Amino acid sequence: MAEEAAQEQRSPDPTRSVRCIVKLGGAAITNKGELESINENNLRSACAQLRQAMSESNSDGAPEKVLGMDWSRKRGDSADPAVDAEWITGMAGLGLETNFIVVHGAGSFGHFQASRSGVHKGGLHSTLVKAGFVATRISVTSLNQEIVRALARGIQNSLLCPLLCAVGPSIVITRLPVGTSDEKNHGTAYSFAEGIPSVGMSPFACGWTTKQRKLASSNTSQIIQSLHAGFVPVLHGDAVLDELLDCTILSGDVIIRHLAQLLSPKYVVFLTDVHGVYDRPPTEPDAVLLREIEVDEDGRWSIVKPVLLQGNNNKGVEISVASHDTTGGMETKILEAAVIARLGIDVYITKAGTDHSLRALKGDVSTDTEDWLGTVIRSSR
Amino acid sequence: MAEEAAQEQRSPDPTRSVRCIVKLGGAAITNKGELESINENNLRSACAQLRQAMSESNSDGAPEKVLGMDWSRKRGDSADPAVDAEWITGMAGLGLETNFIVVHGAGSFGHFQASRSGVHKGGLHSTLVKAGFVATRISVTSLNQEIVRALARGIQNSLLCPLLCAVGPSIVITRLPVGTSDEKNHGTAYSFAEGIPSVGMSPFACGWTTKQRKLASSNTSQIIQSLHAGFVPVLHGDAVLDELLDCTILSGDVIIRHLAQLLSPKYVVFLTDVHGVYDRPPTEPDAVLLREIEVDEDGRWSIVKPVLLQGNNNKGVEISVASHDTTGGMETKILEAAVIARLGIDVYITKAGTDHSLRALKGDVSTDTEDWLGTVIRSSR
Repeated sequence: MAEEAAQEQRSPDPTRSVRCIVKLGGAAITNKGELESINENNLRSACAQLRQAMSESNSDGAPEKVLGMDWSRKRGDSADPAVDAEWITGMAGLGLETNFIVVHGAGSFGHFQASRSGVHKGGLHSTLVKAGFVATRISVTSLNQEIVRALARGIQNSLLCPLLCAVGPSIVITRLPVGTSDEKNHGTAYSFAEGIPSVGMSPFACGWTTKQRKLASSNTSQIIQSLHAGFVPVLHGDAVLDELLDCTILSGDVIIRHLAQLLSPKYVVFLTDVHGVYDRPPTEPDAVLLREIEVDEDGRWSIVKPVLLQGNNNKGVEISVASHDTTGGMETKILEAAVIARLGIDVYITKAGTDHSLRALKGDVSTDTEDWLGTVIRSSR
Repeated sequence: MAEEAAQEQRSPDPTRSVRCIVKLGGAAITNKGELESINENNLRSACAQLRQAMSESNSDGAPEKVLGMDWSRKRGDSADPAVDAEWITGMAGLGLETNFIVVHGAGSFGHFQASRSGVHKGGLHSTLVKAGFVATRISVTSLNQEIVRALARGIQNSLLCPLLCAVGPSIVITRLPVGTSDEKNHGTAYSFAEGIPSVGMSPFACGWTTKQRKLASSNTSQIIQSLHAGFVPVLHGDAVLDELLDCTILSGDVIIRHLAQLLSPKYVVFLTDVHGVYDRPPTEPDAVLLREIEVDEDGRWSIVKPVLLQGNNNKGVEISVASHDTTGGMETKILEAAVIARLGIDVYITKAGTDHSLRALKGDVSTDTEDWLGTVIRSSR
């Protein structure tokens, strides 16, 4: 059924094709050292850049104005009239090219609960594993909730984040009422809204399952229906049921590879906490950023840029992969990225919250010049 | 596929059959007057009573002790060593008869966003409707998150809630460390855990859709797999895609009726904010609680208890239904309940947080005596 849906999805109608699948890396959007702590700056920046990438091909005319309130505001958050008005305006950016899919990692959400209990090893007869499964899902779905909220809501206090002002689809200058509960907002504040029509989709609940840790079943028809309705699906790495092990962890990178195979996006972007793939741990002084990696039909890689001195490029990468493993799961990223690139889909791995990530999200990446920092993985065909 | 799964579900194996589907009414678990406000007492009480109902047939032996922490605790919540140890212990109550399904309403979550934007009327071309769809889902899924958390987590400060101590599966007495950030806990606190292995399942994300507001597709296979794995699925009323209207609202009561038809539970419980169905608005002095309603094969109702003076019972109920409509959607409840009762499944409608709701959750309901307050709707066969 997912396959049929994917065929349908591959139709040439541009309004139906997926433009980009974006991975918001756990290392980028959370503070990994701190239990369940979001990296607010990186998340805000990623949301703003996503909005701008979606607006690119739809800058014609001012968006419809609809008075409303920022319904995505959390209980207890202080009201901001600018955002309240602007959020719905942002939603009017539904002329936006919203054919993006967002998948995020867990970072400091879920990882502790999962590793502490051994959910990835399976065995639901164990009290600890079952407790860990429930706890892991509570943690990762709460992160998903926050990311959907951040994509949909207005962003306040943009003064604190000049980048966002720079890329904001529109800016409202407003004087907030004296005595607002948010001291930071006293005086003049600049506000605008992302207003991305995002909808959370939790893989476990949607019926994604594994068999011996390999993806066994997925549910992409609802993802496709949501895209057709103009929504941006937001998935995440999750604890799932496993046919043989009872349960395990399904990583966001595997979800992205599967969706790329089915939905043939124009390009895939991995936003992480380093500039890309290096030939050794980036903390080492002589670490070299690998700007372009080609994958041939047999899945063999060769480093096109830069030309490294060592003879065996693959070995070079493998070494770096192994040593990167503790710094954001770069290994899975590269392996899954290679599978995607073999399909003829370009993969961009770059650092979140930079001009380079904005260019990657727009698909505006060139390795001919030195001004884009990141790694492109593409097919040699 | 859902149908096949349902057949499988109907197998006589008791570990596979669903014992009870519970509706946590929005009017009961939220403060309807207040935007996005949870009725903490009713929610805590419902979780404790669910745990006790699940424990009934499994009181043999002390639960396995596993040291752990209350992973369901929110960021910022103060740690409680008693709960930390006890939560995992609670999870050990996975010898619990967990074959329950929980469905909750929205109450003060989502209703405002949905009605303000007209999501139920459809039309996603409208900016306001699309914004409302996203906002409604953010609101109802945040409530779902809190309910899953409440079912899974330990309940603290039980001193403040004697009922919970009374029904607690086990009680730990602990002296919290001096200087804990939670002032209320200084001195001796009683704590225990529900530890119900609950998993949130959002109908929209799972692929539940409607056609002209009537249920068109559902995804019950994952619900059944979760039940078989020993988890308690927690669903909710949601904004969903509609084949003709683009979108609408799918009520929790319709979800319960559909699940009851497919999974044949032993009984269905609606927990609400009144004692049951009355012959007129319960606020009126002479309002009579209808204790037993029979539904015949043609769907006609007759009030068995009490015997009312008026000639036409149905009319009496219809009047009360209409007048109840503003007080918690009693009309939908009764109409869906009648469909369920026709299948031979008893439906109990009663007030949350009372001895009557505990008895209903245990299936221990009799209308022969006056000591149970509530409405039983059953088949006349």
